[in-house]
Amino acid sequence: MLRFLRPVLFVCGILVLIMAGLMLSVAVFAWWRQDPEMQVFLTSFAITLACGLLLVLGCRDRGFHLVSRQLYLLTSLSWVLLSLFGALPLFFSHFQLSAEDAVFEAVSGITTTGSTILSGIENLAPSLLLWRSLLQWIGGLGVIGMAVSILPFLRVGGMRLFHTESSDWSDKSIPRVQSLARMLVATYLGLTISCVFSYWLAGMNLFDAVNHAMATVSTGGFATDDRSMGRFPLEVLWVSILFMTLSALPFTLLIAFFRRPSLHVLNNQQVIGFLCIIGAVSLLLTADLIDLHVAEPFVAFTQATFNLVSVITTTGFASADYTQWGTFSIALFFVVMFIGGCSGSTSGGMKVFRFQLSYLFLRSQINKLIHPNGVFVTQYNGRPVQDDIILSAVAFSFLFFMTLAVVTLLLALMGLDLLTSLTAAATALTNVGPGLGDIIGPAGNFATLPVPAKWLLSFAMLMGRLELLTLMVLFTPVFWRG
Amino acid sequence: MLRFLRPVLFVCGILVLIMAGLMLSVAVFAWWRQDPEMQVFLTSFAITLACGLLLVLGCRDRGFHLVSRQLYLLTSLSWVLLSLFGALPLFFSHFQLSAEDAVFEAVSGITTTGSTILSGIENLAPSLLLWRSLLQWIGGLGVIGMAVSILPFLRVGGMRLFHTESSDWSDKSIPRVQSLARMLVATYLGLTISCVFSYWLAGMNLFDAVNHAMATVSTGGFATDDRSMGRFPLEVLWVSILFMTLSALPFTLLIAFFRRPSLHVLNNQQVIGFLCIIGAVSLLLTADLIDLHVAEPFVAFTQATFNLVSVITTTGFASADYTQWGTFSIALFFVVMFIGGCSGSTSGGMKVFRFQLSYLFLRSQINKLIHPNGVFVTQYNGRPVQDDIILSAVAFSFLFFMTLAVVTLLLALMGLDLLTSLTAAATALTNVGPGLGDIIGPAGNFATLPVPAKWLLSFAMLMGRLELLTLMVLFTPVFWRG
Repeated sequence: MLRFLRPVLFVCGILVLIMAGLMLSVAVFAWWRQDPEMQVFLTSFAITLACGLLLVLGCRDRGFHLVSRQLYLLTSLSWVLLSLFGALPLFFSHFQLSAEDAVFEAVSGITTTGSTILSGIENLAPSLLLWRSLLQWIGGLGVIGMAVSILPFLRVGGMRLFHTESSDWSDKSIPRVQSLARMLVATYLGLTISCVFSYWLAGMNLFDAVNHAMATVSTGGFATDDRSMGRFPLEVLWVSILFMTLSALPFTLLIAFFRRPSLHVLNNQQVIGFLCIIGAVSLLLTADLIDLHVAEPFVAFTQATFNLVSVITTTGFASADYTQWGTFSIALFFVVMFIGGCSGSTSGGMKVFRFQLSYLFLRSQINKLIHPNGVFVTQYNGRPVQDDIILSAVAFSFLFFMTLAVVTLLLALMGLDLLTSLTAAATALTNVGPGLGDIIGPAGNFATLPVPAKWLLSFAMLMGRLELLTLMVLFTPVFWRG
Repeated sequence: MLRFLRPVLFVCGILVLIMAGLMLSVAVFAWWRQDPEMQVFLTSFAITLACGLLLVLGCRDRGFHLVSRQLYLLTSLSWVLLSLFGALPLFFSHFQLSAEDAVFEAVSGITTTGSTILSGIENLAPSLLLWRSLLQWIGGLGVIGMAVSILPFLRVGGMRLFHTESSDWSDKSIPRVQSLARMLVATYLGLTISCVFSYWLAGMNLFDAVNHAMATVSTGGFATDDRSMGRFPLEVLWVSILFMTLSALPFTLLIAFFRRPSLHVLNNQQVIGFLCIIGAVSLLLTADLIDLHVAEPFVAFTQATFNLVSVITTTGFASADYTQWGTFSIALFFVVMFIGGCSGSTSGGMKVFRFQLSYLFLRSQINKLIHPNGVFVTQYNGRPVQDDIILSAVAFSFLFFMTLAVVTLLLALMGLDLLTSLTAAATALTNVGPGLGDIIGPAGNFATLPVPAKWLLSFAMLMGRLELLTLMVLFTPVFWRG
């Protein structure tokens, strides 16, 4: 058992040390800004550094090779640990958050969900605002890293579909992994810097631009004000629409595009489907808003597109309380929440390719019903798709709805009404952020939920982020027997 | 095209003539009871007879052989036609229902859903009450007939799973089909008569016993009073629990049991799963009710079990307004609505075996994640299950939730709030009956919904009854090209 855990804890230790480094940077920022929370970050840094060193030095080993069971544990454990350490500055801060509130906020950040238990966010010290944004930003980077390098190996998350060669995690492939990691960080950084610059050009001050950019490219959704994006002019919303959409595209495509800019890169069935959904639904919603006289056509188009893109990319910014837009838009936002962006991006949700694969399978099944002896091959992106990949994509939707049902029931057991339970469960599992209803809608927050509900939703956010299965296997007896 | 349609219309004509016969019987009943609606049934009879004769005589043919494309059309068309003709007495009655209300009520009857647009049901003429019950009863018979003989041939509804030999619909198999049909009708009739007798013993008058028995064994849920089952003593509820549960079991098992009574028949994975779900959830709900001091333990157990079984078997009787039982029971009833009974029964919903297959598949997938080189065979009822059967079961859940989303969005577009839209769509597609919320909850009815919503929900009830695919193929271009 110890031999099994050692390398896992060693890698976790390295991640915890990185976390400590981030805390130190924010402490320096706080010192520069003469921020009252500097002490808080120094304390958190000390604790985190100590724990990280303990893990790294205590579990150091001569050279090791991780097997898939260890990767499951490593992936899940690292998200849990980063959330817990990420909660420290929030817990120690002058805001005096309870343990469950601090953990909820940190998990919401690290998983790039963007649900918050804070109100009066604009009164937070700049260092704490920056910390929340940083949590999302490194969470987003972690998601992509996980999606590109670990999940395909674990056969989770459908990424196999997008790899011709089988990805392997052996010593031989380390150089390839390292160069991939470099490109990934460079692209992510490039996207963030472009976003900061664009926000700043569109009228944000630099501090807001940095924070919102980090929350945008990670499709997280933490803002620096209770009004979320509602206080900014329309130009800012369009910048945000652009970068939220880019961040919900497959990251490997963005890397390819950065290396050799050409629109040809976007000729991808998932990307086209995703953009078509956004286009169609946003026009539909705009028509509804104009019909209901909510706003002038261009404002209506901007508001509709911004909030729709924000939910579908699972960012969760809001520029208006869209639950006041009438029954259709409420139902639309509820449905759209489940879709999510493309696989291999920072966005959550069920992902566009799963819907496309399920649809293609359904079409081939209908063809088979009509022509029982016909042979129908399901093609995706111009290549035939194996049955087991379709099966796992379709099974994910079943697992997703089952998990949704269980979380909803548990929340209802804690006394939450059906709309709140259902949309809280959905928004946590899809990593969107806001739910629906008076309590957790885009104009509310998660502060008043009962304590066990906050722990449950923190767990649900992690489940959603880890594509359910990665975390779920840890709870099977066969995993620990294996 | 005409050669394609002729035999389909001919069989439809026969069904319409049977409908006319039923109308005549009710007219005789009305004459005997000196019921003011006798004229209504005679008029409806005349119209239906004429149309039936027109179809039968106009499309008579020397002897024909139906191919699968014709069976799809026949199945869908016969449900539509029977609904339309079934609506005639309601449309002509002194209740002066509008066309959409009459059709909604008839579709709700024929599909054994049990949603109603009527209030003050207890003021209806006995003949109309009987007609509503009869619609459900023949609807239930139709469902079983379809599930046992047509759907396996069409490879819809997962019934292939329960057949060792492939069912074929050729001239050779006519004797087998005929003897199956005889046993089916005898068993269904036997079940109904036992139910009438039991209700009568438990304290109902004969008329109520007959009506409620027809609504019970068809898992329909039309009552003869606005209070549904709320006005009857607890013994009646237990009789109802027994017969609703029996009616949600695979009908082939009931036939086997009637021919050779032995509990061995119930040793079936789907039946055991179904009974376990009922047992577990009903204990959970009882505990919740006792905890909330809603009722004394035995009353709480009865109320919990009755309303739960009513929803899970998709019957839709109510003995209390369970939406007043607190947040947990509301969420529980919402979730349970989707489960449904066993395949090959009169119940709707997604059916227990689909959940079991999806769960088994998921388990084997998790095993595969942990042991990538292991070979895992999914077994169901002690036999290995082919991949394509699992795939179609799992794909059904995807199709179901997509359809649910579309119907919900359309209802919201008509101005219904999210809870009403979502539960109306769910209750229609699963053929349960009541929804949730103030408007369509167990204490309300569907009368005040906008006209287009009634048409949409009528269509959704038919979709649900026909396992989605049977009706959906008719809307594909490939069906009409084929």
